[in-house]
Amino acid sequence: MDQSPCKACVGAWPADSYRITSLDLTDAYLNEDQFFPGWSVVVLKRHATELFELSREERGQLVEELSTVARAVSVALSAKKINYALLGNQLPHIHWHIIPRLVDDPAPSEAPWAVPHTPRSPSPDERRQRIAVIQRQLG
Amino acid sequence: MDQSPCKACVGAWPADSYRITSLDLTDAYLNEDQFFPGWSVVVLKRHATELFELSREERGQLVEELSTVARAVSVALSAKKINYALLGNQLPHIHWHIIPRLVDDPAPSEAPWAVPHTPRSPSPDERRQRIAVIQRQLG
Repeated sequence: MDQSPCKACVGAWPADSYRITSLDLTDAYLNEDQFFPGWSVVVLKRHATELFELSREERGQLVEELSTVARAVSVALSAKKINYALLGNQLPHIHWHIIPRLVDDPAPSEAPWAVPHTPRSPSPDERRQRIAVIQRQLG
Repeated sequence: MDQSPCKACVGAWPADSYRITSLDLTDAYLNEDQFFPGWSVVVLKRHATELFELSREERGQLVEELSTVARAVSVALSAKKINYALLGNQLPHIHWHIIPRLVDDPAPSEAPWAVPHTPRSPSPDERRQRIAVIQRQLG
């Protein structure tokens, strides 16, 4: 990884207008690419790159927050399956992708990254509505 | 998903010869495709499909076991980064992919599923050696 400052740490990503909620250790955002409707990201507030760099307590809390947001996304979008991924190949700061796979998924048996597509930015109205339905499930 | 019996539950996948270790809630195996050397899977012993179907205690223990195996794989393969994914699009039984990305990775900034490749089965010797180096890190 290079020496440039971490985009997540300096607040350059994700955009504030995509925020769903702020939890104890993480912030949850709608993903800027909504090709898979409801695609969200759960970003650790502090900088770390691997699960095994965290304390046991942090890992436990992180997976609770991941699960809480995943359930909300699943119910809000009536997902058939949730895909969870912590990659960090482009941005090595712990962030989970939560990708709901819906009944009309274009390639239901494939990993999201095996489905070539043009990124789909939501309109401001779509963005706000999608964030709101997920927030409603978070209570 | 369909009504056929779950391959993980009936012991039809993964193959026993790929087993690395058995932990409290999970079994860890080397993945049959070794295109990314060290690619491993951590399979929940009981049947569940989503993180939010587990109890809080199970989730905490699951992430501990995921982290333990990921660290062992990382050290054994001198990985630059670990990718973690729980997909279940083909087999909806909780199993984590642990994919080490090495210094000579063919596409270091891409997700594993965005790298088209022919699956690479290890020879029996390669398989045993790779399992052994990971086991050594598990102590």
